Amino acid sequence: MSAADVAVCGLGRMGTALAEALAEAGTAPVTWNRTPGPGAAASPAEAARGARIVVLVLFDAAASHDVLAQVREGAAPGTLVVNCATVAPGESRALADEAEAGGLRYVEAPLIGSVPKVREGGLRVLAGGAPEDVAEAERVLRVWSRTGELRRTGPVGSATALKLVANLGLGLAAAGLREALAYGAALGVPRADVIATLAAGHLAPFVVAKGERLAREEYGHADFTVAALAKDLRLVASQTPGLPVAHAAAGLLAR
Amino acid sequence: MSAADVAVCGLGRMGTALAEALAEAGTAPVTWNRTPGPGAAASPAEAARGARIVVLVLFDAAASHDVLAQVREGAAPGTLVVNCATVAPGESRALADEAEAGGLRYVEAPLIGSVPKVREGGLRVLAGGAPEDVAEAERVLRVWSRTGELRRTGPVGSATALKLVANLGLGLAAAGLREALAYGAALGVPRADVIATLAAGHLAPFVVAKGERLAREEYGHADFTVAALAKDLRLVASQTPGLPVAHAAAGLLAR
Repeated sequence: MSAADVAVCGLGRMGTALAEALAEAGTAPVTWNRTPGPGAAASPAEAARGARIVVLVLFDAAASHDVLAQVREGAAPGTLVVNCATVAPGESRALADEAEAGGLRYVEAPLIGSVPKVREGGLRVLAGGAPEDVAEAERVLRVWSRTGELRRTGPVGSATALKLVANLGLGLAAAGLREALAYGAALGVPRADVIATLAAGHLAPFVVAKGERLAREEYGHADFTVAALAKDLRLVASQTPGLPVAHAAAGLLAR
Repeated sequence: MSAADVAVCGLGRMGTALAEALAEAGTAPVTWNRTPGPGAAASPAEAARGARIVVLVLFDAAASHDVLAQVREGAAPGTLVVNCATVAPGESRALADEAEAGGLRYVEAPLIGSVPKVREGGLRVLAGGAPEDVAEAERVLRVWSRTGELRRTGPVGSATALKLVANLGLGLAAAGLREALAYGAALGVPRADVIATLAAGHLAPFVVAKGERLAREEYGHADFTVAALAKDLRLVASQTPGLPVAHAAAGLLAR
């Protein structure tokens, strides 16, 4: 394949890391970002022109719709759109319909893992879509997950559902940690004791992963932004009744 | 020391395991339980008569107050009360005051770990109280924590504070797991996929620990009852403002 037959639209921290990983693997992609940068295409349409696979790495469904509409203007019929955003299953199916209406194919490929995981090829990638489309998407997805996991989950909607389950777990762990720290402070327990106690308990993986930052009370440069996590929890809580903890956690993390 | 200088009041699953562990270690305690059983003392006063250490293993502060009042009727001056209940720090200080008013000494010793941990001596024990009282309590506490951890946390109130921090973490992990399972079911994700996804994420220790039961959808014989966990979360949420996730989790687990 030529070096330009993959496009990556969206160069946030994750999109940038994904594009860099493809370049290192010998598939330097055309890129586009809302804020123009050196070497990037002027529009999603231009990025998609000549690409066989267009990867979307955007914040949510609204941004995915917006960019997909522009991709459609430049993409050749049959171009494969691979959407890495965490969206609701229904939102993903709507995006797939929109892609198909424009003669494009669509795979949802939400990613579990953060920027450092991309660098080591250790992402867990969930892939939902028609089997032949997922098989084609694998040539980019495997670059990011060669030491991680690439899982075919079924049709469009199945991978995003599982991703939201995972992020619900992550979000509740994050909310739990935040409240336990607040609670410990309210009781006058030394912060180091709170962290040590939690690190020996059931929130351990999250606490240990964040331990160094926690000790410095440094939250600014998280690998996975709290804003994105709050967005995912809102998505979960707003679309499914009867999830009071997710609802409370979404509110807490949105503060 | 004689075989009868320790009493254990409260023979729930945990109290029974603690008493058995003491017996195995050569310190068979006098026991008392609200529901009379073979070989048990007729009252807390009778159990406390002649004991140097009276261990309370009760559900909450109300039960602790009730039994402590009866212990006072039989205990010799200077008898050491070791309270293993998870109560609020303020509740524990009130119990200490009550013990002291009756000429007794008081150590709070909340336990982290469940019945199987008692059997292997692997509990984590937090001990709060006057240093000389904690030192004396250690002869029973070490039996339960010889391969675990015995931690002196400071004055009465410090150990219960840390225990509630730990149980807040545990409770939020439990609530998170329950909601993630409900959410997965609402989305139509196969239950095994939900569990596998969570087991690879930040709720992993809890999910893995509960994995076999989860797969069987069996919740009845938990090592640590959900009722006790709901009680602790209520304790946390009701006494400290601004903990929306703990509040929601308390409600969820109380269902």
